[in-house]
Amino acid sequence: MDAVQAAVSGHPGMPMGCAPIAYVLWTRHMRFNPTNPKWFNRDRFILSAGHGSMLLYSVLHLTGYDLSLDDLKHFRQLHSKTPGHPENFATPGVEMATGPLGQGFAHAVGMAIAERFLAATYNRPGHNVIDHYTYGICSDGDLMEGVSNEAASLAGHLGLGKLIFLYDDNHVTIDGATDIAFTENVELRFKALGWHVQRIDGMDIEAVDRALIAAKEVTSEPSLIMCRTVIGYGSPNKAGKSSSHGAALGVEEVDLAKQALGIPLEPKFFVPSEVYAEFAKPAARGAALEASWESAFDTYVRQFPTEGSTLMDAIGGDLGAEWISKLPELNDKMATRQASGKVLNAIASSLPTLIGGSADLAESNLTHLKGFVDQQPDSPEGRNINFGVREHAMVAAVNGINLHGGTRGYGASFLIFTDYCRPSLRLAALMECPSIYVFTHDSIGLGEDGPTHQPIEHLAALRAIPNFNVMRPCDGNETAACWKIALQSKKTPSLLALTRQGLPPLSPSTLKDHPAERGAYVLADSPNPHVILVATGSEVQLAVGAKDLLAAEGIDAKVVSMPSWFLFAQQTASYRESVLPKGAPTVSVEAATTFGWDRYAQAHVGLDRFGLSAPGDQVMKEFGFTAEHVAEVAKSLIS
Amino acid sequence: MDAVQAAVSGHPGMPMGCAPIAYVLWTRHMRFNPTNPKWFNRDRFILSAGHGSMLLYSVLHLTGYDLSLDDLKHFRQLHSKTPGHPENFATPGVEMATGPLGQGFAHAVGMAIAERFLAATYNRPGHNVIDHYTYGICSDGDLMEGVSNEAASLAGHLGLGKLIFLYDDNHVTIDGATDIAFTENVELRFKALGWHVQRIDGMDIEAVDRALIAAKEVTSEPSLIMCRTVIGYGSPNKAGKSSSHGAALGVEEVDLAKQALGIPLEPKFFVPSEVYAEFAKPAARGAALEASWESAFDTYVRQFPTEGSTLMDAIGGDLGAEWISKLPELNDKMATRQASGKVLNAIASSLPTLIGGSADLAESNLTHLKGFVDQQPDSPEGRNINFGVREHAMVAAVNGINLHGGTRGYGASFLIFTDYCRPSLRLAALMECPSIYVFTHDSIGLGEDGPTHQPIEHLAALRAIPNFNVMRPCDGNETAACWKIALQSKKTPSLLALTRQGLPPLSPSTLKDHPAERGAYVLADSPNPHVILVATGSEVQLAVGAKDLLAAEGIDAKVVSMPSWFLFAQQTASYRESVLPKGAPTVSVEAATTFGWDRYAQAHVGLDRFGLSAPGDQVMKEFGFTAEHVAEVAKSLIS
Repeated sequence: MDAVQAAVSGHPGMPMGCAPIAYVLWTRHMRFNPTNPKWFNRDRFILSAGHGSMLLYSVLHLTGYDLSLDDLKHFRQLHSKTPGHPENFATPGVEMATGPLGQGFAHAVGMAIAERFLAATYNRPGHNVIDHYTYGICSDGDLMEGVSNEAASLAGHLGLGKLIFLYDDNHVTIDGATDIAFTENVELRFKALGWHVQRIDGMDIEAVDRALIAAKEVTSEPSLIMCRTVIGYGSPNKAGKSSSHGAALGVEEVDLAKQALGIPLEPKFFVPSEVYAEFAKPAARGAALEASWESAFDTYVRQFPTEGSTLMDAIGGDLGAEWISKLPELNDKMATRQASGKVLNAIASSLPTLIGGSADLAESNLTHLKGFVDQQPDSPEGRNINFGVREHAMVAAVNGINLHGGTRGYGASFLIFTDYCRPSLRLAALMECPSIYVFTHDSIGLGEDGPTHQPIEHLAALRAIPNFNVMRPCDGNETAACWKIALQSKKTPSLLALTRQGLPPLSPSTLKDHPAERGAYVLADSPNPHVILVATGSEVQLAVGAKDLLAAEGIDAKVVSMPSWFLFAQQTASYRESVLPKGAPTVSVEAATTFGWDRYAQAHVGLDRFGLSAPGDQVMKEFGFTAEHVAEVAKSLIS
Repeated sequence: MDAVQAAVSGHPGMPMGCAPIAYVLWTRHMRFNPTNPKWFNRDRFILSAGHGSMLLYSVLHLTGYDLSLDDLKHFRQLHSKTPGHPENFATPGVEMATGPLGQGFAHAVGMAIAERFLAATYNRPGHNVIDHYTYGICSDGDLMEGVSNEAASLAGHLGLGKLIFLYDDNHVTIDGATDIAFTENVELRFKALGWHVQRIDGMDIEAVDRALIAAKEVTSEPSLIMCRTVIGYGSPNKAGKSSSHGAALGVEEVDLAKQALGIPLEPKFFVPSEVYAEFAKPAARGAALEASWESAFDTYVRQFPTEGSTLMDAIGGDLGAEWISKLPELNDKMATRQASGKVLNAIASSLPTLIGGSADLAESNLTHLKGFVDQQPDSPEGRNINFGVREHAMVAAVNGINLHGGTRGYGASFLIFTDYCRPSLRLAALMECPSIYVFTHDSIGLGEDGPTHQPIEHLAALRAIPNFNVMRPCDGNETAACWKIALQSKKTPSLLALTRQGLPPLSPSTLKDHPAERGAYVLADSPNPHVILVATGSEVQLAVGAKDLLAAEGIDAKVVSMPSWFLFAQQTASYRESVLPKGAPTVSVEAATTFGWDRYAQAHVGLDRFGLSAPGDQVMKEFGFTAEHVAEVAKSLIS
C-alpha cells in the first residue's frame, strides 16, 4: 500500500489479495537462497500477473534478497530496482520480465520443460541433482489471453507435473467484475487440458498450504490451484472492487486499511520485526539446501564424471568448441532451410542440451534432430519438441528453456507467423534472452500459398525491435555462419529467416570468421563502383546477376550481402563506411517492404504491397525480382 | 484431387475428408444466392481451415457462383480466381481471407455479433429482416491457436446461438497424428467455454444433417459439431494419413482414388451432371429466398420507415452526414485518448450501428459510449462490447463486424498490445476491411508501467503493413480529424495511436478538411527555413518549442505535423515536396524507434532501445525528448 501510494501509481489490490498465497509459498514451499539468486536448483517463481510486482518485491525484500526497504520506497522511479513491472535484468530474484498478460504463464511452461529434460537426461538413481518446481501466480487476465491456453494445452499434453500455478481468482478485472466478459468454467477448461485442478479459499493460509502439498503429490499433470481471493484485502472501502486494482488507494484509504489490519499508521513502510524473523527462516533453510545440493552435486560429479562435466558446462552456459568444428561447409545449391537442417543435424550430437522443435511444420522448417527421440510424457529426455500449432506458446516456452539455464532452446515456424508470437519475441529481446528462432518460407518466393502466407512487412517489423538479431542468409555457408552467431549469442535473441526455394552458393566457404558475422560485407567487389547493390537472402543472387549485366554495359557494381542489420550496426564506423559508403549510389534488393531501407539505399527493388498466389518463380518475376530489373533500377539511379 | 494435382501444390486431404460436411451444409442448410453473393441476409460461411480452399471453390462452382471449371483448373496460378488460400477480394462467395489458423474462427464470432446486434436493434415482431446463421469449418490447427480459445470464450460468454462451427476432427496434422501434440479434451473445453457440443461421424451425411438441425435448435449457445472425418477419404494409400494433408496425392494415387470412389479416370475435373443438378437446387431455393426477403424487407420499410431507412443506409454502408456535423472542436489541453473519447461520445447517437469496445481497458482507452448499454447475452442490442483481456479475438471480431456489413466496429487497447493481435490487424489490411482500432498509451510517455508496456518499435512495425493507416494525432482537433478519416475509410483499416498524457492544442480547429487529412502538413511555417522539424503525436509540441528556441538564435525552422505516413504517401508529388522537400535538412521527432524515418529526415530524435519505468515526463526527459534537445539536434544537423 505504502509503495504504491508513494508512487501514486501501481496496483495495490493484487499484492494485498495474494499476500496469504505468497506467504505460504515462500515460507513453506519455495526452495531458494537469497544470497545466491542464481542457485541452479532453486525453485523458479514466475509472477505472471506482473502488475502485482509489489507483491514480489515485498517478498524478495522480506526474505533477504538484495532489495532494501529504500528500494521499495523508490517503486516505479527512474533507475530504481523496483520498476512498475518485474524485470529480470533489474532486480535480483526476478526470473523474467512479466506484465504483458499470459507471458509469465507460457514462459513457465518452458522452464518446467527444461527442468524435466535436464533431470531425465542427467539424474542418476540416488542422484537427483536436477529437481525443482516451477511455481507461478496468474490472474484472470493471464487466463483470458490465448497464449496461456496454448501453453496450458501443451503443458497438459506433456504432463509437466512439477509446474504449479496459483490462480488469483478475485472476480475483479480492470473494467469491473470479471463476469462482464469472462464466465467460462476455468476449472473444467483446465481439466479438459489435462491439468490437476483444485479450488480453495485463497485467503486461508492452511488451505493454500494443503493445496500446494496436494499439487506436489500429482507428478503426471501440471497443477492449477484456483484461489478465491479478495482483491485489496483489508481496504474497508475498496476491497473486492476494481477500484483497488490499478491505482493507489489514496492516503486516507491506506490509513483506514492499516487501521483495519492492525498496522500502525506511521512510519510508512513499517515491517514488524517478527515478520522479518518469520521470513528469515526460509532464507536460512535455503542456504542450507544449497550447501547440501553443492555437496550432492560434487558426489555426483565424482561418480559420473562424464555426465557431471557435461552438466556443469551446460549450467555454466559453456557449449564447448566441438560443435564449431562440426559445422558443415555447404557449397551446393540448396534452400537455406535445408542448409539449416544440415547444420542442426551436424552439430546436434555435440550440443546435448540443445532442444527445440517446430509449431507443426517440422517437415517444412527442417528442424527435426534425426536420431533423437521426441519429447513426450514418457520420454522427457526427448530433444525434439512437437509444439503443435501454437507459435506463441512455442516462442514463450523456448524463451523459458533459455532462461532456465542448462538448456538452449529453439523454435520454428513460417516467417509470416512471427505475427502470432511477437509479444514473446519482444520479451526475449527485452530480457536479454538468447533464444533461437528458425522462420522459413521467408518471402513471396514461397509461392502458391499466397498473400496470407507471404511475409512483406515482417523483416522490417522484426528489425525494428531493439536487441533483436534478424539474420537472412543468402546461401548454405551464410546459414551455417548465422547458426554459429545464434549459438554464441549471450544476451540477444536470434532469428534466422530462411527460404523455401533453392539458392546457389555465393558466399565464402570459410566457416571460421565468416564475413556474415559482421552483418554485411562486400560479396563481389569492384574497385571504383558506379553503384552498390545491397541485398539479403534469396535476392543476393539477383544482385550478383545484375552486376554481370551491368558490367556488360560498362557499369561497375559492387555487391554487398547484408544478412544482419543488427550486427552491421555494431561494427566500427570505418568498416561500415568501407562496405556501404554514405552517399554512394546504392540500390537495396529484398523481396519485402522497402520500409527502413532508406537508411542504406536511395533506390529500392522491394515490394510495398501484398503478394500473390502462384508458383514462386512467377511471383518473383511478377514483382520485378529479376537480375534484369535490378540492373534497370541501378541504371536509373545513377543516371 | 485434380486441381491440387494440376497445381502440384495444395491440400487435397481436407476437401476430400470434409466433402460430406460441405455437401450437407450447402445443399440442406445454407441460405445463399449465387447470383447475388452479397445478399445481405445470406448465411455466412467461413472456411477457417483455409488451406482446404479447394473444398470451398468446388462448392462455389457447383452451386453456381461465378467460378468456372476453368477457374478451378487454374488453382494456385497467377491472377486466378482460385488462389492457394481463400481471398474475399478475389473470389465471389468468399467472405474473408483465411489460412492463418484461428483467424476464420475468430472473425466469425464478430459476424455473429453483428447479426445478433442488427437483429436485436432493427427486427420488429413479425419482421425478422435480419436473421441468418454464421457457419464455419475449422481444423485441429484452428483450435490449437490461442486466438480461437479467446474467441470461443467470448462467443460462449455472449451466448451466440447462431454461430455454428463444424470441426474437422481428422486426427491428423502436418507433422503426423494430432496426438503427438494435441491430446486435450476438446469436447470438455468447449463445454467449459459455454458451447453446445456434439460428436458425430463426419463421414455420415445424415449424422451431419441431424447435428446441424440440433445445433440450430440451441439458441443461447454457440455450437461446435465435432465431426470425426477421414482426411484424404477415398485415397487407398493416403487416406487417414498426414501424407494427404499438404501435398498433391500424385498422379497414380489420384487414379487409384478415382477407381476406389467410382469416378472415371478421364476427363480430369469430371463433374457428373447429376451432381450439378443436385447443387442447383439450393441455388434455386436461394434465389427464391432472396426474392421473398426483398419483399418482406419492403413491407418492413413501409411499416417502420425510420428503422427501415436507417437500416437501409447501414446496409449500404452510408453513415450519413449528421455525425460529421457533431464532431467537436477540441481546443483545450487534453490527452488525445481523452479527445477520442469526446469525439466518440459526440457522434455515437448519429451512428447507431457503430459498436465496439475495449480489451478490458475501457477506463484507460476511454472508448465507452455513455448512455448506451453493454452487449451481453440478454442485451444483444448493446453497443459497448466488453472484449475481456483478449486483444487478438477482439481485433478479429471487430474485423468480422465490419466484414458483415451494416455495422461499423472498433476495438481498443494499449499500443504495446498491437503485438498480441497483429495477425488480425494484417488480415484487415489484406481483406480491405475498414476496421477502426484505438490504441492508447502510445509511447514511453505512459511512464511508470515501464518497458514491458512502452511501445518502441510498434509505430514502425505497423506503418510497414501495406494498406494500413496508422494515425498519431498531436492534439484534440487532429484526433477528431483522424476519427473522421477512419469512419470515412472504405477499404483501409485505421489505427489511432493516442497518448496517455495531456497535450496542448496546436493544430487548426477547422474540422472541415483538416490538413491532417493529407497525412502531413506544415503546422508552423517559415518562409526560408534553415531546417524542417517533422514530428508526430505528443512530440509535435517539442518541435514547436524547438522552433521558438531556434528562432531566438536566428535559426528559422518549419514544423511539420505528420499524423499519417499512409495518407501522406497518397498525396501528389508536388504537395509532398511542398511539405517535406527532398534533400532539405530535416529532423524527425518521435518518441519511438528511428527505424523508417530515414525516408524523411537525415537526423532523428528517437529511441532505439527499450524504455524505463518512471513518471512519464522524467522518462521523456531521460531520453532527450525535450524542445532543447530537438533544437540541439537541429543545430548539429545544419552545421
